[in-house]
Amino acid sequence: MAPHPLSDLSLDETNHARDTVLKLHPGCVIDFRAIYLLEPHKADMIPFLEREHAGQDEIDDGSPRPARLAQMRYDVIGGSKAAEYHESVIDISTSQRVDHRIVGPGHHASLTIFEFEKLIESVKASPLFQEKLNTIELPDGFELVLEPWPYGAPDEADGATRFFQALCFAQDTRHGNPDANFYSYPLPLIPIMDASTCEIVRVDEPATGGNGDPFSGISHKKAVLDHCRPAEYVPELLTAGTRKDVKPLVVLQPEGPSFTVSDANLVQWQKWRFRVTFNPREGAVLHDIRYDGRNVLYRLSMSDMTVPYADPRAPFHRKQAFDFGDGGLGHAVNNLKLGCDCLGAIKAKPPSPPAPFSDGSEHYFDGVLTNSDGSAVATKQVICLHEQDDGISWKHTNWRTGRAVVTRRRELVVQFIITLANYEYIFAFKFDQAAGITFEARATGIVSVVNIDEGKTAPWGNVVNPGTLAQNHQHLFCLRIDPAIDGHSNTLVQEESLPVPSHALANPNGNLYEVHTKPITTSSGIDLAPFRNRVFKVQNRSKKNPISGKAVGYKITMPPSQLLLADPSSIQAQRALFTKHHIWVTKHKDDELYAGGRYTLQSRREKGGVADAAARGDNVEDEDIVIWSVFGLTHNPRVEDWPVM
Amino acid sequence: MAPHPLSDLSLDETNHARDTVLKLHPGCVIDFRAIYLLEPHKADMIPFLEREHAGQDEIDDGSPRPARLAQMRYDVIGGSKAAEYHESVIDISTSQRVDHRIVGPGHHASLTIFEFEKLIESVKASPLFQEKLNTIELPDGFELVLEPWPYGAPDEADGATRFFQALCFAQDTRHGNPDANFYSYPLPLIPIMDASTCEIVRVDEPATGGNGDPFSGISHKKAVLDHCRPAEYVPELLTAGTRKDVKPLVVLQPEGPSFTVSDANLVQWQKWRFRVTFNPREGAVLHDIRYDGRNVLYRLSMSDMTVPYADPRAPFHRKQAFDFGDGGLGHAVNNLKLGCDCLGAIKAKPPSPPAPFSDGSEHYFDGVLTNSDGSAVATKQVICLHEQDDGISWKHTNWRTGRAVVTRRRELVVQFIITLANYEYIFAFKFDQAAGITFEARATGIVSVVNIDEGKTAPWGNVVNPGTLAQNHQHLFCLRIDPAIDGHSNTLVQEESLPVPSHALANPNGNLYEVHTKPITTSSGIDLAPFRNRVFKVQNRSKKNPISGKAVGYKITMPPSQLLLADPSSIQAQRALFTKHHIWVTKHKDDELYAGGRYTLQSRREKGGVADAAARGDNVEDEDIVIWSVFGLTHNPRVEDWPVM
Repeated sequence: MAPHPLSDLSLDETNHARDTVLKLHPGCVIDFRAIYLLEPHKADMIPFLEREHAGQDEIDDGSPRPARLAQMRYDVIGGSKAAEYHESVIDISTSQRVDHRIVGPGHHASLTIFEFEKLIESVKASPLFQEKLNTIELPDGFELVLEPWPYGAPDEADGATRFFQALCFAQDTRHGNPDANFYSYPLPLIPIMDASTCEIVRVDEPATGGNGDPFSGISHKKAVLDHCRPAEYVPELLTAGTRKDVKPLVVLQPEGPSFTVSDANLVQWQKWRFRVTFNPREGAVLHDIRYDGRNVLYRLSMSDMTVPYADPRAPFHRKQAFDFGDGGLGHAVNNLKLGCDCLGAIKAKPPSPPAPFSDGSEHYFDGVLTNSDGSAVATKQVICLHEQDDGISWKHTNWRTGRAVVTRRRELVVQFIITLANYEYIFAFKFDQAAGITFEARATGIVSVVNIDEGKTAPWGNVVNPGTLAQNHQHLFCLRIDPAIDGHSNTLVQEESLPVPSHALANPNGNLYEVHTKPITTSSGIDLAPFRNRVFKVQNRSKKNPISGKAVGYKITMPPSQLLLADPSSIQAQRALFTKHHIWVTKHKDDELYAGGRYTLQSRREKGGVADAAARGDNVEDEDIVIWSVFGLTHNPRVEDWPVM
Repeated sequence: MAPHPLSDLSLDETNHARDTVLKLHPGCVIDFRAIYLLEPHKADMIPFLEREHAGQDEIDDGSPRPARLAQMRYDVIGGSKAAEYHESVIDISTSQRVDHRIVGPGHHASLTIFEFEKLIESVKASPLFQEKLNTIELPDGFELVLEPWPYGAPDEADGATRFFQALCFAQDTRHGNPDANFYSYPLPLIPIMDASTCEIVRVDEPATGGNGDPFSGISHKKAVLDHCRPAEYVPELLTAGTRKDVKPLVVLQPEGPSFTVSDANLVQWQKWRFRVTFNPREGAVLHDIRYDGRNVLYRLSMSDMTVPYADPRAPFHRKQAFDFGDGGLGHAVNNLKLGCDCLGAIKAKPPSPPAPFSDGSEHYFDGVLTNSDGSAVATKQVICLHEQDDGISWKHTNWRTGRAVVTRRRELVVQFIITLANYEYIFAFKFDQAAGITFEARATGIVSVVNIDEGKTAPWGNVVNPGTLAQNHQHLFCLRIDPAIDGHSNTLVQEESLPVPSHALANPNGNLYEVHTKPITTSSGIDLAPFRNRVFKVQNRSKKNPISGKAVGYKITMPPSQLLLADPSSIQAQRALFTKHHIWVTKHKDDELYAGGRYTLQSRREKGGVADAAARGDNVEDEDIVIWSVFGLTHNPRVEDWPVM
């Protein structure tokens, strides 16, 4: 049985694709960055899915099957030339390269964890960095810790060079605990590496002043950590210990879960049916989502996010992560463990005697990552599937008879978690029993901090621990929604509830309000307007609800977040144009998956992202459309966010 | 041991207060509406609480103790005069009436369930109503069902008369099931009763037309229900049955709950400590809320809510419930039952063999209600206290060592539920382990519907079942927050995060944004501005956080709801002035508890509510302040909301 076209490449498929590439570049060193499924063209998938859902055996009927394609990302190092970044597509079954291009100096490949490892080696070996480090006096027993970061948007003078930077901290090693929290000891040094030479070309020395102080220059004393204090979070280092007064709360599913997983990645639960894949750019991706046999979504994924920091002092203007596009996600994904990450204590045994329960109340999906030699490695349990109770679903009491009918709300959760240096994100797609889907993004982990002189405060952040300034920042996420409401001809419709002035005939008592609807006809970005109760629906206008007479559809409910605050002319804003609006609608194109564009690492302007797609001005009325939902947080950190939010 | 001053009147105390009133009105019939605790003056409570928290024995040290006071609401019927509505205050220990007033014709007492019972009797006995009912042809086996409602704001011509109205439906009795859903068979008749005479003075015949039809006049056929269809929700009437594919999910606390309840109403959980009372106006009220020994809130309560409907056709402009102020709450409160209303299946036994568990994983508070003869009756389990798991609290992985530390988020929930005819509200105060409190309002039950002619639709609602129009409406809630952050001298501070234009010196890279804060100095109402990230904090400016140097405080996070849509000059808007702003701050006064004013039933303008309080222009900087948070829903019903939301 051939794998389903919407299933991840296997280890074997990945290795076969790698081998095919290696044969195409004899005599060169190939440094692989990523290998993963290139999903079939939607135009090929739709008839396949129609046959699948019609129950036809797509193997035997001779119908064409979408090819298994691998997208390959690798550097080619050979001869006298500098390393070149290549992207190609390998057809697994034919071992042919069906697409190939060399990505020029205008764009950078996503980073790999292997580049971070080189950065750490290079900084440690750098005489320039050592010289700067010697200007600082570390307390006894403290050791340097390097935190690799993408460089952010290069300054004009940086040109097209690929850089990495390391934030520096010191760790108290006196307890011998490698998990002592080093973030409470930030050092004002930022070494910069040229990735092509692995040389440390510069060490930035950010200012450590506060309100009213200059934006650059060294104001700190040599013993820059003397006013810093510990801020531990691992249990064995907590002087007060952990809470002892929380009694166990045990969640059991004695008959197992209500869902099934079959055909590797096909999930069925209640009236829902969908497929799950994992890739290093987007994490968990959901495909071909159907409810009660009806088509709802073709694809649902986290598309992008950016985290700009608001400290105006160089080099902090370059602190702006694109945690999906910059490339760390694949290796940043957490391997999830039962009883902590997932619901309560599924399967955990009550003290004694054990309660009856069956295995399999949750399900994990593994992923495939790529070593730098291109060999595939399984990464275990990167996506978790579990059920949870979410309180009362609905209730009604007939007060005449006293009869109360109450139902519980059960949810199915598809969850993944990523760690990006100090920060964690928890992403969950939640399916409910009333045909609803909720996407949840939680931010946790440790806020990004820098050193601040003793006794000072700063307007662009808050002192969360002595000597430790947590800088104000934003998180702006974009969820990509590829709808298929009863088919692929959909329309985004804006609806508002608006007041109506009193009028003798039309509104004699002044209590009327009107519901205004407007289809969005041209690809564009639109903002929310909560005080107009502006909501958006995706409708299939060719299908009417037989009761209401209105077009069938889904409402998209979004938080009216503050959008990007950076000056529109700033590099921060220019490279994250997707944050200009709360909702975008574009006409579907197979290769448009990333709101911030394909190449975010060291970008200075968003290219090929949703803003460019919208600017085409495509007709999006009764079309195959894509919806992009932008939401976020403005985070001015508090002491209470420390040490772990 | 005397009861704590912040504890409900006992049955004995209530009956004693009743007896005291009866003695004061010899020869009269007293029709009691409500008897419940009048909380002590805050000025008296503060020193008491200080002594209590200092661990002093307030009985033995001879310090004065706030008196136990009962607020009495009753009609006096005697001699030739019409019934008069009285409010008085009885000091339980001295059996003295310490306050007394007769509420004049400008205001109406809150309704009682006994008035609703009279309404049903009167309609059934009314020849006028019978005559109108005879103009309609009910299907075989269908019987009239009357749904009592407050009259809403009287029209100018109605004067000061106290009215009640009944919405009419028909129930299919052919299955013999008294819980068959009659809401899917709405009748276009609304009988009106004069409460002083119990006479049906009028039967309104609302229009049943749709888009473009006249606002009044009869367009329906005699067989007005012939195009209506059943919409059942009780399990035994569901032709498709209930879901069979949800496997059990069992929540157990084998060692019992982590909270304790002592001294009748003192709750202690984790670092929290507070008291719970119940009264028929506000439901569950929380008092003297402290965290880790520090003062947080003096009082927290649902203050008010209004539900205006947007159908412009008379008499639907009078559909505007004040579900707290109008008075139905006491008898509308649900008696909660384990395993359905509260968490999952606390204590529910897994199929076999039973898991170990102890009793007492949840706690119920009973309430006291009053019969019309003033006798106290216990109403069981009106407030539920339970713990629940809310997923990951925080997580951080040290990617160097692979060490992940993850904590679960446990919550303590104080919940009550009310049924108001077709509608249910679920209110929950949730306490977390990070010193946060969340207030949750859920709306469920059945949307309010009226008859609509076959095949028609209407702009002021949606057809949710054949012949059944669910009218557009709003829900606007007000939560009253009486803060005591480290004491009673607090300030409301507005904070915004605002962009800063690029500037060579101050913002050279355009990434800076600024945090602007502004104390609110004068009592007033303020609106949210989510795109400015406008948030509000309650601060104690005399106490600084030792790390950040900033005033200690709590942030209040509110949803930026659409406010009331009715024309500002309309009666709907005038009687709900509290809906004009998202947040109000006023100077504390003991008797200001209700945002919409003390008397909402048949009001035409809000009086003595938060708008009047704010209009005093009191200084609210470093004062004993009260915060009023207004939020809500604009609900344009969908077919999917039917039959139970």
